[in-house]
Amino acid sequence: MGKTVKEIAEFLGGTFSGDGDAVIENVKGLDEAGQGDLSFLSNPKYRKKIDTTEASAILVSPEIKSDKTLIHVKDPYIALAKVLSLFHDPENHPSGISGQAFVAEGAEISEDAVLYPGVYVGPKAVIGKRVILYPGVKIGPQVVVGDDSILYYNVTVYGRCLIGKKVIIHAGVVVGSDGFGFANPGRDNFKIPQVGIVQIDDDVEIGANTTIDRATLGKTWIQKGVKIDNLVQIAHNVVIGQNSIIVAQVGISGSTTLGRSVIIGGQSGLIGHINIGDAVMIGAQSGISEDVDSNQIVSGSPHMPHRQWLRTQAIIGRLPELYKKISLLENQVREMESKLKKE
Amino acid sequence: MGKTVKEIAEFLGGTFSGDGDAVIENVKGLDEAGQGDLSFLSNPKYRKKIDTTEASAILVSPEIKSDKTLIHVKDPYIALAKVLSLFHDPENHPSGISGQAFVAEGAEISEDAVLYPGVYVGPKAVIGKRVILYPGVKIGPQVVVGDDSILYYNVTVYGRCLIGKKVIIHAGVVVGSDGFGFANPGRDNFKIPQVGIVQIDDDVEIGANTTIDRATLGKTWIQKGVKIDNLVQIAHNVVIGQNSIIVAQVGISGSTTLGRSVIIGGQSGLIGHINIGDAVMIGAQSGISEDVDSNQIVSGSPHMPHRQWLRTQAIIGRLPELYKKISLLENQVREMESKLKKE
Amino acid sequence: MGKTVKEIAEFLGGTFSGDGDAVIENVKGLDEAGQGDLSFLSNPKYRKKIDTTEASAILVSPEIKSDKTLIHVKDPYIALAKVLSLFHDPENHPSGISGQAFVAEGAEISEDAVLYPGVYVGPKAVIGKRVILYPGVKIGPQVVVGDDSILYYNVTVYGRCLIGKKVIIHAGVVVGSDGFGFANPGRDNFKIPQVGIVQIDDDVEIGANTTIDRATLGKTWIQKGVKIDNLVQIAHNVVIGQNSIIVAQVGISGSTTLGRSVIIGGQSGLIGHINIGDAVMIGAQSGISEDVDSNQIVSGSPHMPHRQWLRTQAIIGRLPELYKKISLLENQVREMESKLKKE
Repeated sequence: MGKTVKEIAEFLGGTFSGDGDAVIENVKGLDEAGQGDLSFLSNPKYRKKIDTTEASAILVSPEIKSDKTLIHVKDPYIALAKVLSLFHDPENHPSGISGQAFVAEGAEISEDAVLYPGVYVGPKAVIGKRVILYPGVKIGPQVVVGDDSILYYNVTVYGRCLIGKKVIIHAGVVVGSDGFGFANPGRDNFKIPQVGIVQIDDDVEIGANTTIDRATLGKTWIQKGVKIDNLVQIAHNVVIGQNSIIVAQVGISGSTTLGRSVIIGGQSGLIGHINIGDAVMIGAQSGISEDVDSNQIVSGSPHMPHRQWLRTQAIIGRLPELYKKISLLENQVREMESKLKKE
Repeated sequence: MGKTVKEIAEFLGGTFSGDGDAVIENVKGLDEAGQGDLSFLSNPKYRKKIDTTEASAILVSPEIKSDKTLIHVKDPYIALAKVLSLFHDPENHPSGISGQAFVAEGAEISEDAVLYPGVYVGPKAVIGKRVILYPGVKIGPQVVVGDDSILYYNVTVYGRCLIGKKVIIHAGVVVGSDGFGFANPGRDNFKIPQVGIVQIDDDVEIGANTTIDRATLGKTWIQKGVKIDNLVQIAHNVVIGQNSIIVAQVGISGSTTLGRSVIIGGQSGLIGHINIGDAVMIGAQSGISEDVDSNQIVSGSPHMPHRQWLRTQAIIGRLPELYKKISLLENQVREMESKLKKE
Repeated sequence: MGKTVKEIAEFLGGTFSGDGDAVIENVKGLDEAGQGDLSFLSNPKYRKKIDTTEASAILVSPEIKSDKTLIHVKDPYIALAKVLSLFHDPENHPSGISGQAFVAEGAEISEDAVLYPGVYVGPKAVIGKRVILYPGVKIGPQVVVGDDSILYYNVTVYGRCLIGKKVIIHAGVVVGSDGFGFANPGRDNFKIPQVGIVQIDDDVEIGANTTIDRATLGKTWIQKGVKIDNLVQIAHNVVIGQNSIIVAQVGISGSTTLGRSVIIGGQSGLIGHINIGDAVMIGAQSGISEDVDSNQIVSGSPHMPHRQWLRTQAIIGRLPELYKKISLLENQVREMESKLKKE
């Protein structure tokens, strides 16, 4: 399966310097790579490692120079993605429906879909072409799963939810559980039925054990190309705009709407019923309690412009010092005042 | 299945204005509703939408006026819950025990319980009347599940835990995993066996992928009517008082006790071994490290009275400005002092 | 099964005061214990309960005095762990491979392993001696599970990951899901294949619904003796050093490395690509964005030395007061300045 440095550079549409005939058998990180391994540098923080790595060649951006054998590409991270496909075969799957899967009456399974043991598909569900349902996946009644989607181990999709094409859902994800809606909270906690659905559009990827609640009415909507990390909470009637990125452990409260290309850092929380514009960036551990206009970068809880937040953060730890300064000033002013009075 | 506005108003014990003969076929949100749809207004933030909605009628509170056809009720959110039952049939279930469910020796399954494919019920477990165990539910040995409870897909209940009546547990919830108890933490991490249980009382609802650990000794106790959202962590020996509301991604540490009707906002954390009184409200993303008396509203990390927190939040972002003010004051005072000395 | 106080003291290598012939039948908390029960005091906060407990005997540290029957031991919490083994039998398991488990071709199951119904073991996986796979466990292709490990209900291990010996993994945990790696985030979200693995060493315990992502290249590595609580997120290529303790809902971002014996409080977040030294303690709800040297205690977001953080926290709630003080000082200084000018 070996490829030469020259072949790989051509495959990637890049150039090489050094030994073009070196044979690459595998791809590894800079620290682990050895003879026969290709490595990559995408985070400039690790630039010095080029001098110490044992890799036979390194994928780098055009401005990097070294005596080592280099493959220069515009974006080494994307090049890494492409080159990995040369050296790593995709998982093999058995064909068809396992005898230990359960398909309810009226469900439609496309002939080339794969249903592993322990899969459950409810009544009138529709499973698209080349869909892979890993062991333990549970599909509720009337769910539709689009072509080429992959649902990993123990994913649950409640009834009537819609999953698009080329969607990847990792293990333990729950799609379509009831939204958290109770009238008179803390008193009689009267349950509001959650009769809406979740709609997940094409090319979405969802991380392990994330939860996405169904809408009270209408739909909770994850739009095309959105990527969601692990252990994220998406409440009822939330809309997440195209290509947005939601990092791990974020929580988004009910009926909040995100524009396109929003990026939310890990562990942030968004209150309900607000609108976040397009291309907003929200720092990790932020708390967002108001609308945010498009193209803003905000951080903090309460959130503020990111630059202001950086300045604020720099001062937080100096509060004890500020406190002392103020006390000192108070004493000085008091003394001066009494002096002035005497005069 | 259509009902007239007049019929619905009567069913809800409310009154109507406008076209009482308009026929309602479905219930939708204000934005999505059209001809034949009933909608509702419960959040005053959306009041203007009454003017623009295409709904044939709107559930509103008594003080709302409009030329549109309105159904006036005391609490539109509760009325919504009631009216949804007119238009949405509950899910149909197969009857009895699936041939692909597994029931261990000595387990008792009430005749009218539903066990879907992939359900496991351990030795000596007792499953009550009309209980529904969705595909993939795992019930450990000696667990008791009370009448009319619903456990959704892939819920796990470890051995000996007790689930009350009319309890709803959403997909992926884990009840009864070991509490996190290790002696000499960071050194030998000696495991303390967790031999207690979890007891969940009647009318509790638990959101997807939430985890509730068993007690070291005795029980972790979720009392009657408590509602817990998704991805919440409840540690060993915690007690949550009746009708309390725990929003998504909250974490409650070991042996902490909550009174009745406590409401905790999303992503808050409570330290262990503290007592929270009745009817306490805790804001989102708070950090609670001490007892809180009944009827308090607190926020922040560290927590403080909610009003104080609001004032504090307003100042946080102005810290850089305060810092400059202090520096300026220091200069002014220094100058004045030297002036006074000269004199 | 009863044991006398004297027998228990001997078993624990401790001493007793009071009635050595009292017969103990069970172990309970101080509040619940009655006639025939042994209880324990390890948290000094509850010392007064010794006077009120109905327990027949109490495990205490050497300095505690009381008229009650006491068993004095060096560490009552460890003694509790040992004594529980006298009174609580471990769960019984059926032997062998359930007829409702699925073992793929080429998988090796040690003869004395237990596979419950609904277990799936993928091609070429290796399951060690005395391993227990609870109902619904899913083991991907080529996974290795070491001897004496216990995987509870619905645990998922993706392909090629390595689980050591005597590992305990609680229900719903996901090991080996794809790391969150996308080039051009927010724009085309180009997926970077995640071809590395997760390696979990011996004696690790992992709490319910925690997620551990596989490495992009190489491995995400949980070293020997690490204990991880519920709902924790471990990103790709993270390394957690021996005997570290990670409390619930912590999130650790990609490629961050922890030394030995690190303790991280609940809900804290660590940014990616940083190094945390040995024996670092990180307070709950902290946000760590830089390297931390060994043996530091840090808290806060942004983090700072714990003592500084305590002083800072004490001032946060007084910001409105500080703000007023500064305004007052400004007025005073202004007045004095105009006075001085006049003179």
